[in-house]
Amino acid sequence: MSVRRIGILTAGGDCPGLNAVIRAVVKSAARRKPSIEVVGILDGYAGLVEGRTRALDDNDVSGLLPRGGTILGTSNRDNPFKYIGKQNSKPQDRSKDLLKTIERDRLDALIAVGGDGTLSGALAISRLGVPVIGVPKTIDNDLNGTNVTFGYDTAVTIATEAIDRLHTTAESHHRVLICEVMGRNAGWIALRSGMAGGGDVIVIPEIPYSIPHICEALQDRIRRGKNFSILVVAEGAKPVGGTIVSQGAADRRSADPRPRLGGISQVIARDVEDLSDSDARVVILGHLQRGGTPTAFDRWLATCFGIHAVNLAEKGLWNHMTALQGNHIGEIPIAEAVGKPRRVDPQGESVQAARMVGTSFGD
Amino acid sequence: MSVRRIGILTAGGDCPGLNAVIRAVVKSAARRKPSIEVVGILDGYAGLVEGRTRALDDNDVSGLLPRGGTILGTSNRDNPFKYIGKQNSKPQDRSKDLLKTIERDRLDALIAVGGDGTLSGALAISRLGVPVIGVPKTIDNDLNGTNVTFGYDTAVTIATEAIDRLHTTAESHHRVLICEVMGRNAGWIALRSGMAGGGDVIVIPEIPYSIPHICEALQDRIRRGKNFSILVVAEGAKPVGGTIVSQGAADRRSADPRPRLGGISQVIARDVEDLSDSDARVVILGHLQRGGTPTAFDRWLATCFGIHAVNLAEKGLWNHMTALQGNHIGEIPIAEAVGKPRRVDPQGESVQAARMVGTSFGD
Amino acid sequence: MSVRRIGILTAGGDCPGLNAVIRAVVKSAARRKPSIEVVGILDGYAGLVEGRTRALDDNDVSGLLPRGGTILGTSNRDNPFKYIGKQNSKPQDRSKDLLKTIERDRLDALIAVGGDGTLSGALAISRLGVPVIGVPKTIDNDLNGTNVTFGYDTAVTIATEAIDRLHTTAESHHRVLICEVMGRNAGWIALRSGMAGGGDVIVIPEIPYSIPHICEALQDRIRRGKNFSILVVAEGAKPVGGTIVSQGAADRRSADPRPRLGGISQVIARDVEDLSDSDARVVILGHLQRGGTPTAFDRWLATCFGIHAVNLAEKGLWNHMTALQGNHIGEIPIAEAVGKPRRVDPQGESVQAARMVGTSFGD
Amino acid sequence: MSVRRIGILTAGGDCPGLNAVIRAVVKSAARRKPSIEVVGILDGYAGLVEGRTRALDDNDVSGLLPRGGTILGTSNRDNPFKYIGKQNSKPQDRSKDLLKTIERDRLDALIAVGGDGTLSGALAISRLGVPVIGVPKTIDNDLNGTNVTFGYDTAVTIATEAIDRLHTTAESHHRVLICEVMGRNAGWIALRSGMAGGGDVIVIPEIPYSIPHICEALQDRIRRGKNFSILVVAEGAKPVGGTIVSQGAADRRSADPRPRLGGISQVIARDVEDLSDSDARVVILGHLQRGGTPTAFDRWLATCFGIHAVNLAEKGLWNHMTALQGNHIGEIPIAEAVGKPRRVDPQGESVQAARMVGTSFGD
Repeated sequence: MSVRRIGILTAGGDCPGLNAVIRAVVKSAARRKPSIEVVGILDGYAGLVEGRTRALDDNDVSGLLPRGGTILGTSNRDNPFKYIGKQNSKPQDRSKDLLKTIERDRLDALIAVGGDGTLSGALAISRLGVPVIGVPKTIDNDLNGTNVTFGYDTAVTIATEAIDRLHTTAESHHRVLICEVMGRNAGWIALRSGMAGGGDVIVIPEIPYSIPHICEALQDRIRRGKNFSILVVAEGAKPVGGTIVSQGAADRRSADPRPRLGGISQVIARDVEDLSDSDARVVILGHLQRGGTPTAFDRWLATCFGIHAVNLAEKGLWNHMTALQGNHIGEIPIAEAVGKPRRVDPQGESVQAARMVGTSFGD
Repeated sequence: MSVRRIGILTAGGDCPGLNAVIRAVVKSAARRKPSIEVVGILDGYAGLVEGRTRALDDNDVSGLLPRGGTILGTSNRDNPFKYIGKQNSKPQDRSKDLLKTIERDRLDALIAVGGDGTLSGALAISRLGVPVIGVPKTIDNDLNGTNVTFGYDTAVTIATEAIDRLHTTAESHHRVLICEVMGRNAGWIALRSGMAGGGDVIVIPEIPYSIPHICEALQDRIRRGKNFSILVVAEGAKPVGGTIVSQGAADRRSADPRPRLGGISQVIARDVEDLSDSDARVVILGHLQRGGTPTAFDRWLATCFGIHAVNLAEKGLWNHMTALQGNHIGEIPIAEAVGKPRRVDPQGESVQAARMVGTSFGD
Repeated sequence: MSVRRIGILTAGGDCPGLNAVIRAVVKSAARRKPSIEVVGILDGYAGLVEGRTRALDDNDVSGLLPRGGTILGTSNRDNPFKYIGKQNSKPQDRSKDLLKTIERDRLDALIAVGGDGTLSGALAISRLGVPVIGVPKTIDNDLNGTNVTFGYDTAVTIATEAIDRLHTTAESHHRVLICEVMGRNAGWIALRSGMAGGGDVIVIPEIPYSIPHICEALQDRIRRGKNFSILVVAEGAKPVGGTIVSQGAADRRSADPRPRLGGISQVIARDVEDLSDSDARVVILGHLQRGGTPTAFDRWLATCFGIHAVNLAEKGLWNHMTALQGNHIGEIPIAEAVGKPRRVDPQGESVQAARMVGTSFGD
Repeated sequence: MSVRRIGILTAGGDCPGLNAVIRAVVKSAARRKPSIEVVGILDGYAGLVEGRTRALDDNDVSGLLPRGGTILGTSNRDNPFKYIGKQNSKPQDRSKDLLKTIERDRLDALIAVGGDGTLSGALAISRLGVPVIGVPKTIDNDLNGTNVTFGYDTAVTIATEAIDRLHTTAESHHRVLICEVMGRNAGWIALRSGMAGGGDVIVIPEIPYSIPHICEALQDRIRRGKNFSILVVAEGAKPVGGTIVSQGAADRRSADPRPRLGGISQVIARDVEDLSDSDARVVILGHLQRGGTPTAFDRWLATCFGIHAVNLAEKGLWNHMTALQGNHIGEIPIAEAVGKPRRVDPQGESVQAARMVGTSFGD
């Protein structure tokens, strides 16, 4: 069977490069022989279930490359069958509605751009008989099967620029400046931006921290004449023993489901001040890391992923997702990538390298 | 009396351009006939009282122009006489120690770079018989007597870039994104970055906000097909009636004197979510606005102020501070600038202009 | 007569902020009581003569604020009557065609956004009985009557960032790096970016340079242990005596009218290498200074100018252009602003200040 | 033998990340057990031959991470034996002087940071019995054996930002804008920045261009309603048949050995204007791509390479260079990396991908 029409959707949190993927899919689909039409599905799996779609052509994607966000919208729900539009209402199986949309729009295949949850959802859809292709997306860079995901480089770049800015203030005011970056389960953003920005202490979910050990690292710097320090803290950081949870995590469990700003970095700031003479200040980058124009690298990678997703559809390599493998754009079965996040190995070469330039992990 | 040696100190919060002032003072003092020597006073008024100083020459200021922060360090204490080094200890009059430093280092005059408090402190010192020159510094831009202060353009630039980034996420996720910027008493950063970034609602201390009116503005956008909005909120924003204070302000009053992250923007987010269907997210820029390399404008202005401060010292125009007046670098008596912050006029042309492009002030 | 419909056109070279002006005019016109409609005229005076226009509403200007360029297009011809569409054909009087467009589109007034030539053209149009308002635009910042024009800050910012980048290479390679910036008749961009970037020699059209004096300045630096230097050169730089013209100027005179890259900075590089041991390299920024997203300041100023242009039309203050006057957005008669470019005063405070931090002007 | 003292030198053209390598080598050498001392060799192989060195410790490398350039200086000469300090004088064998420096400073090994020529030079030195380690450096990214070299990402980022800026002007003025980027033999910078910036035509050394084919691509865009185009041209671009050489190349052959600005992009601009109605403008990025603060990625990679170079020295893995292999920092024999530049494969997946989004290569 030759593919004539593909649907594309973006799901999950915002990520720089989504528009570049959409553009590349549309542009490169039009150049196949025979050409392939592209249908955009609005607001992720929600639009698929609710039948909200629009045709996409060259004009729709003109000028999209440098733009953050996604013209298709996205939703935070990963499960395509239980999506029901309203919070707190009873889940229902929406798989029939989903198939109706695919039939109505005569989609021969579906390209799902998203993270672990979205890709798992895509596999579930494939079991209904819909051919699917995945494009991995996570600024956290914690997906297996690809060297890196688009969005990560942009997030690291923004975090590094922030650390650069905080450096001068820390130095002038002899302070501890804490920069909280994204990474609920994996510390990749903290680790790389911490190394690129010269963070003195990097706190990641994979290595539980101890306040006394962090303070020792700060003391050690003071002894060497450096009366200021930069901490880079992943939002998912956990203390040794693990009894203190991040406020964000606590919030999610509490009756009120809305996330609140303020998290583990503020706990750390307070504790550091209590145990030392230091004056600590916190900046939480939050959504700054998710939006805005992608870096050149992310635009390139997202473009390559979009093109290769159409390649995979042309070849009928269903249930695969695109992947960066060294300098080669390849693919792996989605099933091999999802379900087990790639986390920082506390004994691995990345952490060892960071220790070699004097970085403390607070352990 | 011709001036042979000048002391220079930087005081108050960090501000991009301080190093550029120091560099310009040192470089331009060396080029006078006869040349003037410059002594750097460490950590603001603290160093003056405690006698911590260092000579500064061309080599010390080489490469300083693009660097944020201040090589002299700074302190947050404005009162030069009561400074005592430790928090919570009893204040004592340190004016004799201060004069001892000035005598020891044979300083003919003092250049004080700082905000309202620092400049008032400089006037107090002048009453001890020390000739002083002021250089205005505040990222809030709320000082009278000068069109603008250095640091403000950098803060506005960073805020505008942040708003740009948040735009794409707001649009993709149909959300309300709130960007909290500095401005405890004056809304200049919020007003200008809000206009430069296309903020839909700008909340400033000078115009108390009403949650229902903010929600109306958001509703109005939804009616016009725009299911997302950007709020730019100054940290000093106050609701109509004024009963709810910013968490930061509350913190300062509470037993524990340490500032905490999280403020009025989170209160607004919560209230907007309660009163509307909207999903709101907050980013607080905090110290990102204070550090890092100054913009080209701020480097230029800081350089001009440094040069002109030495001009004023040469001419003996004591108790004056440098000022930007149109395209001219001039000066005004410090006494005319301090004590009454320049605030946004709710009826003034700036606010009227913003309303004309559809901005709501939530009033 | 109350104004119901306004035409707007952008003319002359590209300039960051043009789209922000268009957006502000459209948005603020819609909010007048009664509201004012806006008609966009395509490609400057060419579209006016040829009748190419389009209505503009809120949707057309959505998202325009951060975008460089102009959605209306522009043309390089300043004379609205002689415009004839093709190069080298005979000029004809097109004033009747122009009036026909204005009548056809029922335009009560015309807002012309442009530089000296465009504004002079607007005055000429006003003499046909068409009410006109001007908005000044020049990245060179050489217009009288306003403290500054939008586009200038962006050009200076780009130039300063370029100088920052060249610094490290100059230092590592012990070289002379020359950065050529715009400014055919006025050296404002070179002067400000040179001061903001720490240029060692600044060469501007208003101060003829002497190669021996430039080399002396470089020698002087080497004597002080700095074996590298940065030259910032305006494209309109002229040697003492003036016999050597910039290659660009020569090109313009030559039979072939197309501009060529390469100019005075290459002549200077060659001459410096001939007279000294130095190794010199040149970067010509050219069009990089004209395009791309405007700085926060330029977005703000362009927005204010767009709003105030509609104010002036509402009040019937014809033949005036908007102007920044200190912190106030005002206006002056176009006739007072055009015809005599504002140039750098070789004896003025700006040049004196730059000399005070050690800058040589090669004179 | 355990390594106690290492020398490090940087050679060849400037490249963002050199300082980050030096910092990582010094910091990580100090943390070995037993610790390793580091000696910096000034100005590349020149300093090695002439005995100009300095000890480096933690303080020397403090704050270096974000700084472009190299504190050690560099030289353009690759051959360590024939270096003689003056141009055009007779080459002499300086290997004895070189060994004298190594003996005098008691260097157990040498880390050479540089490109193909520098690394070949290092191998030559190793044949004198000096243990060497290589760190690959080229902004062109044309070295074998590593996925990527540091500096490349920064160069691509700067080129992409420039293309973004030129886009708006091209669009507003209906012009052809040509951005010339580095790449004498390999088109990687042009290819990646062209894809990231949305270049319509990408001209690289590996695919000879034909002006008629370029003009066809421009015509095709005009037919689709896009009356502007962006060309991204590598400095080493060659026309089909190859008879026209870049002016830079011609210069290098001419009697006067000094390079001149202006190259193949200007030839292309002229030819495109001759063959079409288009108005073409050129910007040559030149040294902008080599200097300034490295991107977060390049700082990270350079840091990892510096650390791993010391690892290799500790293990005695002589004659190897560090390499990025997927997500792993590894090493390969220098001999396998040098001598055969990695060039763009005209039939390879990168070029095919670019064609799929509509990019023309002018062939």
